[in-house]
Amino acid sequence: MKQPIGILDSGVGGLTVVKEAMRQLPHESLIYIGDNARCPYGPRTNEEILTYTTQLVDYLLKFNIKMLVIACNTATAVTAKVLQERLDIPVIGVIKPGALAANRKTVSGKVGLIATETTVRSHFYEHFLWQKNAHLEVTSLACPSFVNLVESHEYHSPLAKQVVKKQLQPMIDQQVDTLILGCTHFPIISDIIQMTMGDGVTLIDSGKETISEVSYILSYENIEASNEENDTSYQFFTTGSAQMFDEIAAEWLEKPITTKHVSLNELEGDE
Amino acid sequence: MKQPIGILDSGVGGLTVVKEAMRQLPHESLIYIGDNARCPYGPRTNEEILTYTTQLVDYLLKFNIKMLVIACNTATAVTAKVLQERLDIPVIGVIKPGALAANRKTVSGKVGLIATETTVRSHFYEHFLWQKNAHLEVTSLACPSFVNLVESHEYHSPLAKQVVKKQLQPMIDQQVDTLILGCTHFPIISDIIQMTMGDGVTLIDSGKETISEVSYILSYENIEASNEENDTSYQFFTTGSAQMFDEIAAEWLEKPITTKHVSLNELEGDE
Repeated sequence: MKQPIGILDSGVGGLTVVKEAMRQLPHESLIYIGDNARCPYGPRTNEEILTYTTQLVDYLLKFNIKMLVIACNTATAVTAKVLQERLDIPVIGVIKPGALAANRKTVSGKVGLIATETTVRSHFYEHFLWQKNAHLEVTSLACPSFVNLVESHEYHSPLAKQVVKKQLQPMIDQQVDTLILGCTHFPIISDIIQMTMGDGVTLIDSGKETISEVSYILSYENIEASNEENDTSYQFFTTGSAQMFDEIAAEWLEKPITTKHVSLNELEGDE
Repeated sequence: MKQPIGILDSGVGGLTVVKEAMRQLPHESLIYIGDNARCPYGPRTNEEILTYTTQLVDYLLKFNIKMLVIACNTATAVTAKVLQERLDIPVIGVIKPGALAANRKTVSGKVGLIATETTVRSHFYEHFLWQKNAHLEVTSLACPSFVNLVESHEYHSPLAKQVVKKQLQPMIDQQVDTLILGCTHFPIISDIIQMTMGDGVTLIDSGKETISEVSYILSYENIEASNEENDTSYQFFTTGSAQMFDEIAAEWLEKPITTKHVSLNELEGDE
């Protein structure tokens, strides 16, 4: 099936999902929209998050997408159930794949979660972790400042290390053996997080894991792209600065891309 | 959903799937049948494999299973499509999960497959690998003698190392970075295989990976067991020696089990 997979995020964090999709599913076309103008979603009300996400979804649906990936943990926590009921295409969030991967990897059964406040408060990770295995010990910690580090493109600064170290102390004290990066922005600073937590802790990149579920569901629903055509296309949209998005994407995806700006007026007009 | 997951194999190899299910899905009940009396399936005709597998499936269906796992690569290669069309429950084979995991893990794009002759000849692994990524280089090698090593419980003998080393030489020459253990018997001798291939090669345990797909599909189809009840049950059947099955299973699962013998007459009468 030639139709693209639609991917949305509050900003650039969902590019971790895009990168993995490009690598594992090179025949699948992708359409991405990042809501950088209204990022971060973490501190917003559920109503705002649902409204904004619905606007992004409506924009993607115009491209006749065959599957929707909510590449933002906060948006997944608030909107995944609603969208799964509303849309007649598969809707994949990033929380379940991250939870399942943590359950697969943990040996001690002590799992940590770092995420935005909204994601932590939603208890969605615990829901999926305990659904599979009620014996897991789960420690959750909101780290909203990490999102700003990434979105402001400041993650190479010496300040970043200090911020991360201070925030993660409670997680180190809990001696988790597996830590879920429960925000698609966090893998961009995973080097710093790994260094802080130590080599004994397995980091779970929820975005990367999401491509496992995407891959299984594409073939379970029999909607995979043909591997015989060479017309894979990638399209990127942002409500923020196309130039800044291009810069971060080029560094992260290791290839140049051309992002188009979409105004909030245009998105809001879609409702 | 309380109903058990049915798992079948030509012998004990599918216990690698059981072990992983017990670990990752502790609330799911399992029913396993191993066709040890007619093992190995590898050298048999497709007609025989289909007949035998159908008998095992009919036996499992009497227990009202909610999902069928074909924990045998050879049986998956020959019967998965037929069974997916025939049954109205999800049918999960071990080949697709192994292929998807190899696609996820490979860096060089050079993937190796070791399996029985039937599995290699079916080109099912290549089908799933290339469906996801047509650029992968795949080398396949039939290693039927490995099955006998395991089924005869001889895998601790010095002979085992020699057999494995000699067989794998062509795979070492191809410089694959990822090697699919495309037979559920092979993980039982994975130490020897890893030593022979070297630390730089990632081994893919197709049985273990299968539980990832099982886990995703259970929740996608909304048929997971409740995590609130404590009545998980495990039942094991074999067409061969219950005592030998118990011994291998106890060693592999690290817990004692009691296997029941099922006669071939009983199975054949089910047709």
